[in-house]
Amino acid sequence: METRTWRDLEQLIEDRDFLTLRNELSHIRDADIAVLMEELRSEHALVVFRSLPKDRAAEVFAYLSTSVQNQIVSSITDQEVGSIINQLFVDDAADFLEEAPAGVVKRVLRNASPETRALINQFLQYPPESAGSIMTAEFVDLKKHMTVREAFERIRRTALNKETVYTCYVIDSNRHLEGVVTVKRLFLADDSEVIGDIMETKIVYAHTLDDQEEVARLFAHYDLLSLPVVDHENRLVGIVTVDDIVEVIHQEATEDFQIMAATAPSEEPYMKTSVFTLAKNRILWLTILMLSATISGAVLQRYEQAFIALPLLVTFIPMLTDTGGNAGSQSSTLVIRGMALSEITPADFGKVMRKELGVGAITGVVLATVNFVRLTIMYPGEPLMSLVVCTALFITVILAKTTGGVLPLIAKSLKLDPAIMAGPVITTIVDGLSLIIYFKIVEVVLLR
Amino acid sequence: METRTWRDLEQLIEDRDFLTLRNELSHIRDADIAVLMEELRSEHALVVFRSLPKDRAAEVFAYLSTSVQNQIVSSITDQEVGSIINQLFVDDAADFLEEAPAGVVKRVLRNASPETRALINQFLQYPPESAGSIMTAEFVDLKKHMTVREAFERIRRTALNKETVYTCYVIDSNRHLEGVVTVKRLFLADDSEVIGDIMETKIVYAHTLDDQEEVARLFAHYDLLSLPVVDHENRLVGIVTVDDIVEVIHQEATEDFQIMAATAPSEEPYMKTSVFTLAKNRILWLTILMLSATISGAVLQRYEQAFIALPLLVTFIPMLTDTGGNAGSQSSTLVIRGMALSEITPADFGKVMRKELGVGAITGVVLATVNFVRLTIMYPGEPLMSLVVCTALFITVILAKTTGGVLPLIAKSLKLDPAIMAGPVITTIVDGLSLIIYFKIVEVVLLR
Repeated sequence: METRTWRDLEQLIEDRDFLTLRNELSHIRDADIAVLMEELRSEHALVVFRSLPKDRAAEVFAYLSTSVQNQIVSSITDQEVGSIINQLFVDDAADFLEEAPAGVVKRVLRNASPETRALINQFLQYPPESAGSIMTAEFVDLKKHMTVREAFERIRRTALNKETVYTCYVIDSNRHLEGVVTVKRLFLADDSEVIGDIMETKIVYAHTLDDQEEVARLFAHYDLLSLPVVDHENRLVGIVTVDDIVEVIHQEATEDFQIMAATAPSEEPYMKTSVFTLAKNRILWLTILMLSATISGAVLQRYEQAFIALPLLVTFIPMLTDTGGNAGSQSSTLVIRGMALSEITPADFGKVMRKELGVGAITGVVLATVNFVRLTIMYPGEPLMSLVVCTALFITVILAKTTGGVLPLIAKSLKLDPAIMAGPVITTIVDGLSLIIYFKIVEVVLLR
Repeated sequence: METRTWRDLEQLIEDRDFLTLRNELSHIRDADIAVLMEELRSEHALVVFRSLPKDRAAEVFAYLSTSVQNQIVSSITDQEVGSIINQLFVDDAADFLEEAPAGVVKRVLRNASPETRALINQFLQYPPESAGSIMTAEFVDLKKHMTVREAFERIRRTALNKETVYTCYVIDSNRHLEGVVTVKRLFLADDSEVIGDIMETKIVYAHTLDDQEEVARLFAHYDLLSLPVVDHENRLVGIVTVDDIVEVIHQEATEDFQIMAATAPSEEPYMKTSVFTLAKNRILWLTILMLSATISGAVLQRYEQAFIALPLLVTFIPMLTDTGGNAGSQSSTLVIRGMALSEITPADFGKVMRKELGVGAITGVVLATVNFVRLTIMYPGEPLMSLVVCTALFITVILAKTTGGVLPLIAKSLKLDPAIMAGPVITTIVDGLSLIIYFKIVEVVLLR
């Protein structure tokens, strides 16, 4: 929607026309200013940042990438650092500091107010990808005995520094969570009603150490805008808001894509990752899988006599192993995704096995038939060979489907990430199996 | 958090203890009642449904799967149908009717109020996966000249039937969108301030026909709770809320997983999909890929003389083709995911190409070296053969990485879904290429 691009802004900076610049910036949304700053040279990005009013500077800062955040912090005064860090929501501050170099962390914490510093230090202790690490401490708390009018007054007095005001949390004097009440519910109540009477007591909550994926599931299941987080003594310590959950869902899906492609997971965007890091993330699995593939090689070596006698047999190997790999990957991908969405659990082992046996039988028959027709046309004089190839194909597909469907479930039971049992691993396993099946049948039918 | 399970409820139903049942249900959240109903026999599910107070019945109904929704509708009276459909938010009603059998649709529309019917009919016309199809018509609109006090009064008067009240939309007499104002902003204002002065005019909005994936991107980029949707004359017709976006993000990721595994996309959960449908969704791609794999077969047939002369060469084929396939899949998966997250666009073709060439060179050297060591140990008398295999491996990896990185971008430029250029297709292409490279080198080095 913005017509001004970073080139226009760059011109304004070079012309030192700061008045127009400031005016232009006031028409651009925080998230888009961050995008522009990412594109600008670092001195220019700093000029843009300094042209922002104080309250916006912290908002924009939260949207920046870690590298630009570090650049900014190392170019501004201690006082400016303090002002930004005190205005940031504590979860955004912790996010930034988690990945900042030690020097920057020290300088930031030194310039933060004592309360902010204590809060940030607490947040930095939660394990990554836990509910604690994605929660924020800025929420509205109410007491049971308040009236709706008093609640509104409290909300209006404190709204400025709260990440969300739309769900309020009712706590007792020990900070134990007693209920939640939405602003919508407050709107529907009379001013004189008492919070304790209208609050919702069927509370969905998380513990600080719960996995963020589990938290995301609660949001999806209950259509939540925010979720309270309690510590081991069941005291309310923070809330998770839905905008962070949108990020978690993207992140978790990306991680699954990466692991399923046999790559080490990384949160850095592809375009910002160096060639060296990309290579490093991929090399381990490639090596493991390459060495595993020598098992298939050993199978082939064992049956060398068969293809010396009938060299044509070799030409069907790619079709057979690829189809097996593809059939298995389809099953494993659907099961892994189903598990990620909590639609499938290890308890469904038997059901998945039966389903994949059925699917394997149907697809196996169709593929074997299509292939038989093709082989009969291409090699009309070799019906027995065609039959051997298609029988091997049929068995391979059934085996691939059941293996692919069941291995992610087994991985989960063994506390491994089911996503590793995706295409690459399944293909390697099915390759070996399909070659054994193929040459066993060849041996029995063609070489006797 | 609930200790009661569907077995307890089933007992209450069989004991006809409806009083306790009703009491129990009042302690369970809407989303969880829907889960329980999915597990119960259909007569029992109906008893549960009828035990709910009217206002909750519609909420629970929106959470049910299409099949249980259909069961319910065909077992209740016309009057009950009318009551539910009039209380449903129009997007939930349209979602249900989109997949309901024609008879059910007719009966539902016949019993809806005229306004509801008109609205539902309008919503049913938006294409699937468009902003129009996921928006809701129940939002709070304000006028520019209202004071904050008047705005609060209007919100409180109409809140009950609005899906969200937290962002209000300021429209003129022609329903053109002039601004948005959040309830948080209203809380921070004085009662006498005028909406036109405090509303945000940097509005992020979508058109009814925009793709839902694009809408989800706006939510993630701007941390939105809701987004206005306008028609072709720029009139405000609805809003999209973040809970629907959470579902869209899950759905779009699932679709990508399915397509990347060479499966026809389906929104039905795996466990609820019949064996026949699962097989049908998988068979087309398996057949296409199987037939494409015959190209690799043809390459092998062309070089039959080579492996008749040196049968050992065959045993390296799985290692070579698998490694090529895996290397290519890694690249294509990361690029496809990067495109889904808008981090990579077709304009990055050159950058991706250079990155993957670099990554290919590094991983290729490492893999070839590891493999050379292995071959030298296993076949000490065959240094030339080892060198041939490892050279082929090195070239294959570079070619696989660049092909895998670049094909999704080309697909996008051709208006195809980049996700089809994932593991299975890349593997099939790289298989043929790697075999040609392998045997070309064999021919030149070993057979001269």
